[in-house]
Formats: sequence, C-alpha cells, structure tokens
Amino acid sequence: MRRATAVAHANIALVKYWGKRDEALLLPESPSLSIALDRLFTTTTVELGVPSDSLVLDGRAAGEGELRRARFLLDAAGIGEGARIESRNSFPTAAGLASSASGFAALAVAACAAAGQKHTSRELSALARRGSGSAARSVPGGWAVWEDEFAEEVAPPGHLPIRAVIALCGEGKKDVGSRDGMKRSQDTSPYHAAFIAQCRRDYLEARALLRDRNLSALGALAESNALRMHADALAANPPILYWEPPTVSCLQALRRLRDGGLGAWATIDAGPHVVALCAPEDAPRVESTLRAIAGVRDVLVCAPAGGARVVEGDR
Amino acid sequence: MRRATAVAHANIALVKYWGKRDEALLLPESPSLSIALDRLFTTTTVELGVPSDSLVLDGRAAGEGELRRARFLLDAAGIGEGARIESRNSFPTAAGLASSASGFAALAVAACAAAGQKHTSRELSALARRGSGSAARSVPGGWAVWEDEFAEEVAPPGHLPIRAVIALCGEGKKDVGSRDGMKRSQDTSPYHAAFIAQCRRDYLEARALLRDRNLSALGALAESNALRMHADALAANPPILYWEPPTVSCLQALRRLRDGGLGAWATIDAGPHVVALCAPEDAPRVESTLRAIAGVRDVLVCAPAGGARVVEGDR
Repeated sequence: MRRATAVAHANIALVKYWGKRDEALLLPESPSLSIALDRLFTTTTVELGVPSDSLVLDGRAAGEGELRRARFLLDAAGIGEGARIESRNSFPTAAGLASSASGFAALAVAACAAAGQKHTSRELSALARRGSGSAARSVPGGWAVWEDEFAEEVAPPGHLPIRAVIALCGEGKKDVGSRDGMKRSQDTSPYHAAFIAQCRRDYLEARALLRDRNLSALGALAESNALRMHADALAANPPILYWEPPTVSCLQALRRLRDGGLGAWATIDAGPHVVALCAPEDAPRVESTLRAIAGVRDVLVCAPAGGARVVEGDR
Repeated sequence: MRRATAVAHANIALVKYWGKRDEALLLPESPSLSIALDRLFTTTTVELGVPSDSLVLDGRAAGEGELRRARFLLDAAGIGEGARIESRNSFPTAAGLASSASGFAALAVAACAAAGQKHTSRELSALARRGSGSAARSVPGGWAVWEDEFAEEVAPPGHLPIRAVIALCGEGKKDVGSRDGMKRSQDTSPYHAAFIAQCRRDYLEARALLRDRNLSALGALAESNALRMHADALAANPPILYWEPPTVSCLQALRRLRDGGLGAWATIDAGPHVVALCAPEDAPRVESTLRAIAGVRDVLVCAPAGGARVVEGDR
C-alpha cells in the first residue's frame, strides 16, 4: 500500500472562467486570472492498493457522483488500482465556497505522489483540470493564469499585497451548480458571446495591471468582470440568480466604502458570497463593515497562498 | 385664464424600454409593451394665462429642473403663455415608483385641454413622450405598445385578467436615474446590443401571447426581459445596481411560489421595486407572501387601468 497526503488552496478568479470550449476536456472559452487563498484549503490523503474505491469528505462518506468524479481523475492519471481517499476542508463545508478547486488539486497531487509518479506542475495542473476546471489554477497557486491545458503561476503570492475578505452571504447548496450554470449561460444567454469577448480583453488588461501592481484598477476590473458574469447568468433561460439579499448589501457597502475613500472591490463566484479585494491595511475595516451587515453569517480574511504540495508520503 | 385637470395612470412595461435611438426626440431603440396601473395615477391641473410658470408637486414647489422639463413640454405643444401647474400623485412620492410616466401624460392632456387644443390620442401620446419616453404609453393606457412617435392601446384593460402586485423594496431617490441609466447602458454595456435585439424578439412574442391571453408564458417572458434589462445595466461601466436586498428576497419568493404551482412572475423597472404579475384570484396570496418579506415596506395591488383623460375643465 502506498500513501500520500497533499494540501491545495482554493482560489478566487479576478477574471472569471464561465464557459467551456470543450465540454469533455474542460477547456475554457477564455483565459482566467486568480489568486490562491491561504485560509481556504483542502487536505487530501490517498492510499492506493486497497480492494475498492472509497471517498470520505470531512468525515462523511461521499455520494456516488463525487466518488465517480474522483475515479475519473484517477483513471486520467493512469491509476487503475483501488484508492481510499480522505479529504478535509479547512473551511465550512457546503457553505458554497469553491471547494472543488482545492479538492481536485489536492487529489491530483496526492494520488500521483502515492502512485510514485513524477510530474511537473503543468502536468499536475492539467490533471486537476479533469476533475474541475478551476482546480487547474489551484495547482500552481499564487497569481495564476489558465488558458489551455494547464494553469501557471505568473506572480508569486507576495507580488501584490492584497487581502480577500470573504463575506458568507448564504448557506446550503446552491440551486444551480457551477457546471450547469455555465452550460446554461453558454447555451441560452444572449449575452454570453459578449461576456467571453470581454473576458479576453479583461484578461490582457488584468495581466498588465498585476504587473504594475495597480490594485485599484485591478479591483475595479475584477468587480466589473464578476458583475458581468452574474449578468450573463441572469440573462440565461431560465434565469440564474446566485445572489442572496446580503449579497446586495455587501455590494452597496463596498461602494459606500469607496465613496468614502477606502479601496475595496467585490468579486463573486457562482454563489452568493462576496469576496472583497483590498490592501492588507484596509482589511480590518472592510471585515468589520461586512460583518455588521444583516444576513452575513461570517467573514474570513485571506491572504494569497502558494500552490498545491505533498505534505506527507511514503516516498 | 383657462384651466383644465387631467388624470393619467403610471404603467409598467412587460417588454422594457431601455435605450433611445434618438436622444433629443426620445425615440426608443426597440418597441415596448405595457399595462396601465389603476392605483398609481397623477392628477394634474394646468392654468394658462398667468404671469409666470410655476409647478407644485404633491404640495411642494418643484425644483428648477422639473420646471424646465414641464416648460419644454408646453413649448412642444405650442403653448407659450405662463402656466401654473399643480400635480399630485396617488402613490407614495419619491418612493421610486415611475411617476414621470403618469406625470407627463397628465400634464400633456391637461395643458392641451386648458389651451383649447383638440388632439387625437396619438398626438397627445407623442407630446407626452417629449417629457418622458414612457409617458407615451400612459396616454392610451390599457395594454399599450410604443415603437415610434406615439404609443397605442392594443387591448383594453380587461382583455387579460391580471394583477400587478407591487412590493416596495426601497426608499428615497435612486442613485442613477432612468434617463442616465439607459444612456450609460447604451454607451458602455457590452450586452446592450444583444438586449435590444432580444427586446425586438420579445415584443413580437409578447404581442402574440397577449392576443392568446397566455398569462403564464407572458409572465415568464416579462420576468426574463426585466432581468435582462437589469443585467444590461449591471454590465455597464461603472456598473449600475438598482436592486436592494428585498428585491432578491422577492424574486426568490416568487420562484418558490411558482415551484409550488402558483403562477406569479416579476418585472422590475429601473429601481428596486418588484412588480409581481399574476391572475386576479392569486393576488391575495402573492400580496401576503411579499408583505411578509423583511425589508418590504408596503405592497400595492393594481389592476389594469385606462388612458389619460380630462376630468375637469373650462371647455
């Protein structure tokens, strides 16, 4: 029996991934840019050579669908033998935070380590992608870009001092999962083609702003990009509304903070939670502002993190 | 001194007007379809032949800008003499309900009556349009369509039994007025062209559904059209967010009602208030559902109304 444990961080995209050019291969329609988040991570242990597959998520046996997705990734890695997988998130489970990115990145890295496979970061990123598109970005970590088969780090975590202040604005599973939501937007939203074209422009601009460490312009671009993604989903048929009432309150609160001279901008993944991007020194005020909003269940302050790594293994 | 009083109802568009093809003439980019609302009306008295213009809105002297817009309409009617205008809304003032539609329709009708001008409904509609585009639809009332210089009634109020249950989801003036909001969407939203193209398709479909008295399909179309209008505004630069937290709660509540088998669909003008469209027999349950939502300040149930008319005059 071979065994390895890996850790990978969730990531939040400043230029979003919302549409696939290849459904089977999970290749994106447009390039995305993300940062890995230090407080949101998954720790996954894989033991190979057991009689049958099993998957435990946060102490509970996972459902059939989750086990099937994990097996699909193992097969893609050429690992045919039985695997016992145990995975734990550092953050509230089923709170609607993107755990598939950190989850599949950690699984890819742990499984390959347990199997004794030597891979480059690019290869591991491409493998994680087969589990969940955004997982490709959690393998390199830091400031990551993803355009084709794999994601890469374009700047280390400390390149631009920033905090991601996450306001939890809802609970429970969302009505429409990310995979279905992006498919429905792609298939039925009259705005989707314009969104993808905009993402290509935003991506190039975001890369330049990141290089120049221009937080305020990058923040404004991220907010605009995220709202356009939600607008694309809202325009789908039937409409997709990921927001909860406090989502709107948080957006209004950040606008008021900016009107008062404090730079904080929102990004929102396919869910209700608002992630406020700001300078490290402004994070305490952003945190207390968001925490005071009715309906906000908790607030987590994250700094940029590094990539997925093996933390324990037989080899 | 000549004097007349007119009444006109506000209207809510099921296929929205959101963009001008002629800024000066207030001609729309795409056709719209609306119903007049019985409980929302403006009563306006115009006295001509006074030494100077004055405008009293709900008992308070109006500002310079409002007086200038009224004078612009009077000039367009060829009325050069001084006018004393007194206007009163049946509904909460400055609550963000579209009072410009009923206000300018009532003003056009009252001023022309006071001046002794004989006009067709089409001419009065075209005149009201010069004050505010959507006022064109409040002149004919009923189920009205507006595509070019004037709006016309395409079906009488009773053609399709319906109620508009209005949930007041905010207070005070909105940050971005309708005129500026549609201009900014037109100038900066990458989705605007697609929205206008969609409105043209929606309009044709809505006309057919109205003819067939198909409330459920018309309601679903209206909700989709309204969300796409808000998505267009959200995609503008800088983004325009008209919603308040209870706006989201109302949208979610209507979706839950539909999941439970009750047909009620939302439309939202350029503001936070949700207008639920439903069959008359379902209005009590929709009203009580929306009234129970945190942050909803009041709920008004409206039936379709007729057009603008003179209610008192010297001639």
